[in-house]
Amino acid sequence: MVITIIGVGLIGGSMAITLKENGFAKHIIGVDKNPENLDKAIRRRLIDEDLSLEEGIAKADIVILSTPVDTLKILLPKVLDLVENQIVLDVGSTKTKLLEHIKSHPKRGNFVATHPMAGTEYSGPEAAIPNLFDNRCTVICDVEDSNEKAIEKVKALYESMKMSIVYLDAKSHDIHTAYVSHISHISSFALALTVLEKEKDENRIFELASGGFGSTVRLAKSSPEMWVPIFEQNRDNVMDVLDEHINTLAKFRSLLIKKDFDGFAKLIRKANTISKIID
Amino acid sequence: MVITIIGVGLIGGSMAITLKENGFAKHIIGVDKNPENLDKAIRRRLIDEDLSLEEGIAKADIVILSTPVDTLKILLPKVLDLVENQIVLDVGSTKTKLLEHIKSHPKRGNFVATHPMAGTEYSGPEAAIPNLFDNRCTVICDVEDSNEKAIEKVKALYESMKMSIVYLDAKSHDIHTAYVSHISHISSFALALTVLEKEKDENRIFELASGGFGSTVRLAKSSPEMWVPIFEQNRDNVMDVLDEHINTLAKFRSLLIKKDFDGFAKLIRKANTISKIID
Repeated sequence: MVITIIGVGLIGGSMAITLKENGFAKHIIGVDKNPENLDKAIRRRLIDEDLSLEEGIAKADIVILSTPVDTLKILLPKVLDLVENQIVLDVGSTKTKLLEHIKSHPKRGNFVATHPMAGTEYSGPEAAIPNLFDNRCTVICDVEDSNEKAIEKVKALYESMKMSIVYLDAKSHDIHTAYVSHISHISSFALALTVLEKEKDENRIFELASGGFGSTVRLAKSSPEMWVPIFEQNRDNVMDVLDEHINTLAKFRSLLIKKDFDGFAKLIRKANTISKIID
Repeated sequence: MVITIIGVGLIGGSMAITLKENGFAKHIIGVDKNPENLDKAIRRRLIDEDLSLEEGIAKADIVILSTPVDTLKILLPKVLDLVENQIVLDVGSTKTKLLEHIKSHPKRGNFVATHPMAGTEYSGPEAAIPNLFDNRCTVICDVEDSNEKAIEKVKALYESMKMSIVYLDAKSHDIHTAYVSHISHISSFALALTVLEKEKDENRIFELASGGFGSTVRLAKSSPEMWVPIFEQNRDNVMDVLDEHINTLAKFRSLLIKKDFDGFAKLIRKANTISKIID
């Protein structure tokens, strides 16, 4: 299987490592508008060769689009214009806008909309790591709009990566991800800003910050190039979740004002039930 | 050195492991109002023996108080009533109220107010782990109110644990910890509640949650028994930080409403600077 990865960053690069290692891909071609990324990807041996978009697609059995979601919207129709029998999949974090955009493309059936639920706060080919996807899940969206052969190949690809598959329509996907991923990032960005604003003495933060702070602000290192387009495309859902999150914080605030610490304990006990769900 | 640990939970138990392992303590005595905790602590070999409060203090060179901060306020005066030459230290997360409370105790000089900046979201003796404190920092508060011999012993104790020491007055300590620790917990509790409220289908959260969500809600597993007394004692500082945090989230909200994604990117870039401070 020849796989062409367009956008060799954290996700594209990590898929390259995994798919080569497990033997699913015989040959991996990298395409990236940034020559520096390609250079790094070659030196890190993430890809076997780098080619232009046209050549990369022509030589591929499967084309993976792993760019930020704004680029994805521009790139996907172009890629579909170029394919014959190739299977195309994206790995973007938002789906509704993208799928509306290519709804009536004659090659729509060759395309499978996927979202592997894995990542780190780092980006670029230097951030690519093995085992990123182990035992995680991939969402396949609007599966009925892809042809059967395409679905089978994409399922085989993700199963080779030790991932399980969940099927959702694009709208549900975008609502769920607003809750389980997008709001975590905004919360983390805001927390970092709150502390940076107050603690002008950065050494003090560094000295005092215990593990707890580190884990809640970890995502605040995430790149605006990746995340702003996600918030833009999923704006309405993110607004809803953000409103609910601010309301929840306001509940804690109101309990503090009233010195209602029994109520505070009750809310914490309810929050504790998250441990049944998250390791 | 004989060390008596009152409250053999996550922090007390982890200190017991570290101080025995590094040879600073020859003998470790556990005191706990909960017989189950003592039983677990004995079976896990965290402590060498368990004794009553009075016996434990009488036999000790150093007494460590590692209970929730509400218990601390009741217990510390009682412990100071019982000491002769013993050094006493606490490891609580709030300091102003506690230190006001024992300000004029005749044995105030024997006491050193400390806060080792380390922890996990778990509690109880079963949560005690080695290396919890490695390369972390300990705050010593209002150092001028402790006598020199007490300070020297407590410094030696923390240095044996590979910890560095920072000196702060109690008020500054409580402000800083509101920023670098307490708000992280409220943010995490609120995030867990926001998601639990929406995602009635817990399996869906479990399937979809990627690493990012896990790390931002990790602290939401923290126990109300430990945390509510902290929020109670540090209420005014926590209120200030919570207000600022809600305001920061409101800034993101307003940028979303106005579709000002350049402004959004700017805020994210500012938040990214946290990576200079936190690994």
